Amino acid sequence: MKIGIYQFNPEWGQIEKNINNIESNLEKHRDVDLWVLPELCTTGYQFKSRQELKERAEEFPGSHTSDKMQKLSSRLNTAIILGVAEKSGSNLYNSAAVYGNGNFKGNYRKIHLFDQEKKCFDSGQQSPGIFDLLGVQVGVMICFDWIFPETARSLALQGAQLIAHPANLVLPYCQDAMVTRSIENKVFTATANRFGTENRTGQKLTFTGKSQVTDIDGSRLGQLSQNKEQILKVDIDPARASQKSINDNNDLFQDRRTNLYTLDK
Amino acid sequence: MKIGIYQFNPEWGQIEKNINNIESNLEKHRDVDLWVLPELCTTGYQFKSRQELKERAEEFPGSHTSDKMQKLSSRLNTAIILGVAEKSGSNLYNSAAVYGNGNFKGNYRKIHLFDQEKKCFDSGQQSPGIFDLLGVQVGVMICFDWIFPETARSLALQGAQLIAHPANLVLPYCQDAMVTRSIENKVFTATANRFGTENRTGQKLTFTGKSQVTDIDGSRLGQLSQNKEQILKVDIDPARASQKSINDNNDLFQDRRTNLYTLDK
Repeated sequence: MKIGIYQFNPEWGQIEKNINNIESNLEKHRDVDLWVLPELCTTGYQFKSRQELKERAEEFPGSHTSDKMQKLSSRLNTAIILGVAEKSGSNLYNSAAVYGNGNFKGNYRKIHLFDQEKKCFDSGQQSPGIFDLLGVQVGVMICFDWIFPETARSLALQGAQLIAHPANLVLPYCQDAMVTRSIENKVFTATANRFGTENRTGQKLTFTGKSQVTDIDGSRLGQLSQNKEQILKVDIDPARASQKSINDNNDLFQDRRTNLYTLDK
Repeated sequence: MKIGIYQFNPEWGQIEKNINNIESNLEKHRDVDLWVLPELCTTGYQFKSRQELKERAEEFPGSHTSDKMQKLSSRLNTAIILGVAEKSGSNLYNSAAVYGNGNFKGNYRKIHLFDQEKKCFDSGQQSPGIFDLLGVQVGVMICFDWIFPETARSLALQGAQLIAHPANLVLPYCQDAMVTRSIENKVFTATANRFGTENRTGQKLTFTGKSQVTDIDGSRLGQLSQNKEQILKVDIDPARASQKSINDNNDLFQDRRTNLYTLDK
């Protein structure tokens, strides 16, 4: 499976322009099986108010952006996972929309909102889920979900071979932490981060780029720069993530001592 | 609180020599409040058989080694956490014995045994626990426990401000992963690793040294070399680990979505 990450600098509020940008760049790489794009990559990141967000959020499926991505996925015969602002009834979610070869496959709604996001977005109310894309079990989490080891762990225990991770990272820790997420769960990870800055709310944010794909032993199979528009393409064999033994005597999942952990506090 | 780590190369089977070595080195540093020493640092690491281990394991408390460490802890007015081979009835554990200012405080028995350890040791049957040392809440885990995020998480959720981590590391991943353990739990960690090699069982092991102390944001407060006998002393303020907020809107513990995790599989 060839994973593609498109790291770019979305223009705030310019949904059509960002979509066109995504389309033209992805279309140049017909060999990619699964694209991972950054968090909120059609709208931009900072919203001054819930109202401002509400005016730009869309339904997935059923909206202009969703239709465009579904068709792009069909045209390229590829899977696409991208971060979007989702409207569902009166709720507004920081979501990842998932398309597989022309079909809308579902959304993951971010369950751990970061900082000011709590003022505009609703938290997802469903467990992080697994999507079957080309026969590969792909778990999806978004940005700040990384800091909670339970997110990647939940996905891996449900069978994720690859964790697709749209992000708008501003803290410097995540890229290295995702190495640990790979090692402890023996999964591939693909973090699609944006670069650039936003300063719409008085809080200047600089996004850290360095999108990456990690192998099941945590080694980096590729990493992009901190502040350039770039595409990363990496071949992985997802089946390598299916068995969790690391030597003749240890299996990372069978060795868990679930009755001795105290995780409910 | 001043943490001391004594990184050394224990001589296999030479318990008395290793104890004398520990005593003479710790006695040079009277300013240390809490010492962390490597895993199995009185006996050495590789046992050819359970019988060979049984002949060298001791009771904690109540054995020669335990008495020596208890007295050392009293003489130096310090806490000491060290890895030992523990005999308890017919069971044999890879344990950390904990002493506080002349008192035996308890053992932690490793719950995730690594590779060949499974052939000689019994797994601990109790949850990783917290020890009150000088008013500081110290969680203890041993070596391979690091790869299971549930271990450090369980300790932190029970109130650990510092995770003391005796180790005999042979894989290259742990020291970086402990940075992630600090960040995700907002705790201090002190990994006391050994260096040197052992080749008693036909499987040559090279221990990776690089003992370290990490701050609550994952930054390294100090790290030793890969293959030298060294002492690391670091001052920490354990109270900084007690509150888990990282900005005005996020608290790493309150933000956990425990009802959405699937960790029982």
